[in-house]
Amino acid sequence: MDEQQARAWLGVAVAEARAGLGEGGIPIGAALYGPDGTLLGRGHNRRVQDGDPSMHAETAAFRAAGRQRSYRGTTMVTTLSPCWYCSGLVRQFGISRLVIGEATTFHGGHDWLAGHGVEVLVLEDPECVAVMRAFVKDNPELWNEDIGD
Amino acid sequence: MDEQQARAWLGVAVAEARAGLGEGGIPIGAALYGPDGTLLGRGHNRRVQDGDPSMHAETAAFRAAGRQRSYRGTTMVTTLSPCWYCSGLVRQFGISRLVIGEATTFHGGHDWLAGHGVEVLVLEDPECVAVMRAFVKDNPELWNEDIGD
Repeated sequence: MDEQQARAWLGVAVAEARAGLGEGGIPIGAALYGPDGTLLGRGHNRRVQDGDPSMHAETAAFRAAGRQRSYRGTTMVTTLSPCWYCSGLVRQFGISRLVIGEATTFHGGHDWLAGHGVEVLVLEDPECVAVMRAFVKDNPELWNEDIGD
Repeated sequence: MDEQQARAWLGVAVAEARAGLGEGGIPIGAALYGPDGTLLGRGHNRRVQDGDPSMHAETAAFRAAGRQRSYRGTTMVTTLSPCWYCSGLVRQFGISRLVIGEATTFHGGHDWLAGHGVEVLVLEDPECVAVMRAFVKDNPELWNEDIGD
């Protein structure tokens, strides 16, 4: 995976996270890219905004991409290591690559995915870490609710 | 888990699956029950109806239940063994029990969940098997799309 490309794509996911934060939501964003680099869908966590616990950033991006015949060659880009729910999404639909902004504030299922053939790149982006660290510090109950803790 | 109770709850999931079939959709239904037996949410696969690949039966029932502080003691009831996406949902949110209509036509992640402390009951209900078998036979492409095959 091209790291410069991955960092550019992460910028879209970060913009989604920031949009979510601006709406009073949980600042996690994601984007799904096609094999040719086309942006298929982007989105952010909508628990607070829509009262919808099923819309994590990754599921929101997946949903926005609409129906696809195959996910072979696609890349899921997310600001935060995916929880089991979103890791299961990546595995079930055969999404080929996973770009993660950071896995410092939360370590989800990305090792499991790597063990099942997904190409995983963890960027440990300082901006992603800072946004989540500040959010979790100020909103521990909301964050725990979002990950079922 | 009380098997008679589980079979009664499965009836609600089956009604959801049949409703989905009536709408021209994929006939998988689910329901989420609270620790005290309250129905928290119910739903069915909405890929065809809403053009939404993120709405599997289990995620639809989870969504319909709205925001919950905890899933401890809850039971997810589904007509079909949950795929990795929906298995990840059950694990991440700490849903305690899983009632499965059948795991004959599709074997998802329920063994993995049992290994992670989820109480799993597979009923192998003949009606659930018959509905899925007929659907997959008549709509192989749609079914494969729904599980990313």
